[in-house]
Amino acid sequence: MADNKKMVDSITAMDVDFAKWYTDVVKKAELCDYSSVRGCMILRPYGYAIWENIQKYLDAKFKETGHENVYMPMLIPEGLLQKEKDHVEGFAPEVAWVTHGGSEKLQERLCVRPTSETLFCEHYANIINSYRDLPKLYNQWCSVMRWEKTTRPFLRTSEFLWQEGHTMHETAEEAIEETERMLNVYADFCEKILAIPVVKGKKTDKEKFAGAEATYTIEAMMHDGKSLQSGTSHYFGDGFAHAFDIKYTDRNNKLQYPHQTSWGVTTRLIGAIIMTHGDDNGLVLPPYIAPVQVVVIPVQQQKEGVVEKATEVCNRLKANFKTSIDTSDHMPGWKFAEYEMKGVPLRLELGPKDIEKNQCVLVRRDTREKVFVSLDELETKITEILADIQENLFKRALENRENRTYTAVTLDEIKEIADKHNGFIKTMWCGDVECEEKLKEVAGVSSRCMPFAQEKVSEVCPVCGKPAKAMVIWGKAY
Amino acid sequence: MADNKKMVDSITAMDVDFAKWYTDVVKKAELCDYSSVRGCMILRPYGYAIWENIQKYLDAKFKETGHENVYMPMLIPEGLLQKEKDHVEGFAPEVAWVTHGGSEKLQERLCVRPTSETLFCEHYANIINSYRDLPKLYNQWCSVMRWEKTTRPFLRTSEFLWQEGHTMHETAEEAIEETERMLNVYADFCEKILAIPVVKGKKTDKEKFAGAEATYTIEAMMHDGKSLQSGTSHYFGDGFAHAFDIKYTDRNNKLQYPHQTSWGVTTRLIGAIIMTHGDDNGLVLPPYIAPVQVVVIPVQQQKEGVVEKATEVCNRLKANFKTSIDTSDHMPGWKFAEYEMKGVPLRLELGPKDIEKNQCVLVRRDTREKVFVSLDELETKITEILADIQENLFKRALENRENRTYTAVTLDEIKEIADKHNGFIKTMWCGDVECEEKLKEVAGVSSRCMPFAQEKVSEVCPVCGKPAKAMVIWGKAY
Repeated sequence: MADNKKMVDSITAMDVDFAKWYTDVVKKAELCDYSSVRGCMILRPYGYAIWENIQKYLDAKFKETGHENVYMPMLIPEGLLQKEKDHVEGFAPEVAWVTHGGSEKLQERLCVRPTSETLFCEHYANIINSYRDLPKLYNQWCSVMRWEKTTRPFLRTSEFLWQEGHTMHETAEEAIEETERMLNVYADFCEKILAIPVVKGKKTDKEKFAGAEATYTIEAMMHDGKSLQSGTSHYFGDGFAHAFDIKYTDRNNKLQYPHQTSWGVTTRLIGAIIMTHGDDNGLVLPPYIAPVQVVVIPVQQQKEGVVEKATEVCNRLKANFKTSIDTSDHMPGWKFAEYEMKGVPLRLELGPKDIEKNQCVLVRRDTREKVFVSLDELETKITEILADIQENLFKRALENRENRTYTAVTLDEIKEIADKHNGFIKTMWCGDVECEEKLKEVAGVSSRCMPFAQEKVSEVCPVCGKPAKAMVIWGKAY
Repeated sequence: MADNKKMVDSITAMDVDFAKWYTDVVKKAELCDYSSVRGCMILRPYGYAIWENIQKYLDAKFKETGHENVYMPMLIPEGLLQKEKDHVEGFAPEVAWVTHGGSEKLQERLCVRPTSETLFCEHYANIINSYRDLPKLYNQWCSVMRWEKTTRPFLRTSEFLWQEGHTMHETAEEAIEETERMLNVYADFCEKILAIPVVKGKKTDKEKFAGAEATYTIEAMMHDGKSLQSGTSHYFGDGFAHAFDIKYTDRNNKLQYPHQTSWGVTTRLIGAIIMTHGDDNGLVLPPYIAPVQVVVIPVQQQKEGVVEKATEVCNRLKANFKTSIDTSDHMPGWKFAEYEMKGVPLRLELGPKDIEKNQCVLVRRDTREKVFVSLDELETKITEILADIQENLFKRALENRENRTYTAVTLDEIKEIADKHNGFIKTMWCGDVECEEKLKEVAGVSSRCMPFAQEKVSEVCPVCGKPAKAMVIWGKAY
């Protein structure tokens, strides 16, 4: 196991430096690589395969809920971006501008899309005429660009991959229902597939999307206690519809403005997986999202029949599990460490003695527990263990969140907790942005959301002492 | 059928103006829409669904042949684009330049990727060290941008969707084998799935990709006799490897430069489908690629039980075919025309009398032939008809190509044919670019390719009279 130790030494321990641990893992697990393009990353095959699994699941859910995919241009003329006042104020400072086509200077600058509300609205103005044209339920898979000052792989990059849903509805009620439906799709996906518990809630006005009436969010807690906003869903009312002159004839033959939503998740979810489940040996992937669920490692593979038998087992398992085999000439110990680093949920070891006994060794990535299993009952056993890993990862993450969730009633309490710990801090709030800013200034925490599941932890706002309007979760965020 | 006629009147007849017919079809079949972004189009749900089917088939083939997907940045620093001389000369005149991030002027301009050889090479230089790292077989699905002067939906747009494969190999032989393998994947896809016959061949030096040693192509003939380059595969030798300093230690512990390929197809394939199979009633989709294979239209749907029965039939068919139903309050005639316009391969009509007789009417889109079919044998019959449509579309397209393929021995013959007809003109060629340019000037045709299946149509080059080196197919191209 010497090789194994050496490999593990090559990443920083979480407790020593969590940020460094994170960048070591994304690099060593070959999820991504840096490029010479400022703030942009390269998604390597293993990282991209996780994104493909995310896409596959969510795309099916979007279609089940009636959405259709489209593709809009990647550039937005400056005049179009400026049509909605709040929106342009929010995004103009962080867009990349195209000013030349070939050697010719353009008459109007175009920005690389930071998000596509304006393009969808321009199109909707052309194709929506009657209530019969509603709802319009469109989604787009693409990359967007936001010129970030400081970047971190997956969490904050100048370019990132995402999906953006953009929908139009006859009524405000229908549109709000849509934002809730899609937030639930995201929450279910995070909890059931990624094994990441999330808090569903509403953003404060300060934290909402530029141009939205309301932003809903799912907030996850990372292993270090910091928050990660993992998916958002926005209700726009008819603000953009007015700005873009989108009108439809209603059932009573009257002209009306439709009500709009948008919602999105990004490759940031891969960052959430890493920071929720990873450990000092590297990545830990939930079985439902893992590109490889079982890796077969032949032991003493130079002995006759070992590689053949291991290949036979691998091929047999492929019918039920995402399985791969490593018959390269590296030592088994090196391979063990390699696939631990890559977070493969289950390792299957098979050597000459195992073959004699018609058995193999299964080693779980999450607990590193080792069991001997008869080859006759392999499928049953693997199914059981993978289900147990999936459940255990969720449980561990939930425990971490519960252990790091605090309740505070006074400003001093908040400050004391925030000084000592990362984590969620629940407090009441009066609803004023001044108190929100004060908390940031004094305790270094920002509002994560007003959870849908409200509790009453006190009567008044801990900052100003006025009557409280809602419970807020505060935290330090990525 | 009055409604039907009216609908058909709304598109220009092919014989009257093929270009106008084409743009009418893409618009009326709701494949795409124009945007306010110069030269960029919006892919609408129906058009995007065809692209998703193309992706699904090809992505599976790429993976079967050992390729992995990755994602590279969408921007390329000017210095990186300039590393390979021929490549930058080919692309620099037609790229969009990003010069500002937010309000800050960038120190180095970045172009929106027109193709990603340079980015892949930069990454390969980092990750390729030994022969053990080879081959690298990567692919990327993304959009690219080329600042075109004149644009046409799907055929030539400033931004388009595509896939770009980029591979690195130990030897020239292996790399050339890869270019042939992928050209064959494209050719099989076009012929078997899109029902488009293609000619496989090599491009002349004049027509090859900027920076490539050799470009291989599949050329399809459209209904009007013009050519469409439908997919290409490039062999680069080790030119980029030298320019980007990509080296590996070979099996004898010597440093070597790897050999490279790239290959791609684009949303242009949707243009090929339209112009190969379409007719005066609109789009005609091959069953294997159609987003909807069977559309169920209830007749006299206000009568009791009709919508229920039609819905039951639709749901039953969904198990085996991509089926949809239209129960909107439009007249049946309007619906017939609508789904003919959209090229749905098979229409199923069901009215009260049919229900009484336990039958329905099936109408093929390609021949408009109508048959009565018992509901008991529906699946068998639909399977048969769809297979027959697929085959018939390929046969019709092949006949069109054969009817419009000419052979010429003298320059006068070439000129005479090209003046009278669109089509493929087969001639011998000496290999000199001067003769190629002369043909363009005199007869208005460009070289499409030197087919792999060579024939000897004469002894000498029809332009200069020197001994011929190869047979070339010439034509007018989109």
